[in-house]
Amino acid sequence: METVLRGSSNFDSSRTMGGMQTLPHPARDEIRIEAVLHALADPVRLHIVRELAQCPDGVSCGVMDLGISPSTLTHHVRTLREAGVVFVRPRGTSRISSLRRDDLDALYPGLLNGVLAAPR
Amino acid sequence: METVLRGSSNFDSSRTMGGMQTLPHPARDEIRIEAVLHALADPVRLHIVRELAQCPDGVSCGVMDLGISPSTLTHHVRTLREAGVVFVRPRGTSRISSLRRDDLDALYPGLLNGVLAAPR
Repeated sequence: METVLRGSSNFDSSRTMGGMQTLPHPARDEIRIEAVLHALADPVRLHIVRELAQCPDGVSCGVMDLGISPSTLTHHVRTLREAGVVFVRPRGTSRISSLRRDDLDALYPGLLNGVLAAPR
Repeated sequence: METVLRGSSNFDSSRTMGGMQTLPHPARDEIRIEAVLHALADPVRLHIVRELAQCPDGVSCGVMDLGISPSTLTHHVRTLREAGVVFVRPRGTSRISSLRRDDLDALYPGLLNGVLAAPR
């Protein structure tokens, strides 16, 4: 799934910031519950989401202690981004991820908080 | 995952009702968020869950218009049961499924309602 964000000039996929091209994201109305649930149904991705929930301004997932290779991390962040769970923006040569809480809370009220309430 | 229900004499796995053996279910504290999310992250299983949400007393999933074979239906209901999303009890020669709403709401407050709020 490589949906290019539409309907939001703020996040045009061809825009560049800091020399790194922005990545495609689904617009809110393109987010599908099955993809969101699939993205969340993985221990590593759930760990990432829990960490991001603590960082409203976003953070580079590379600083998280996940015990996985950079390429595996890239795969997981991509799955979260393509599902509409996280927004990834370039900053210099790194990428900052943040939870799309407003979108998820609007589409599926309670889902994210319910997931975050789960015992680890 | 074939976890036998423990800690609840009401649902002992060796008990029989109507001549059909009851099936194993995870106890509440054995339910894992990853398994619940995986179980919900499928269009057919989500359809089943939406239908069951309308039937607090439970219903045979066989009466649902899902457009799938009986063996595929059995697979999907088993996935939901093993994850702790549905409880399946025998009634005569059929099986009645019901949503484990109390367990899911207690473990992950808001999750189920958020999922059910998703546009179809």
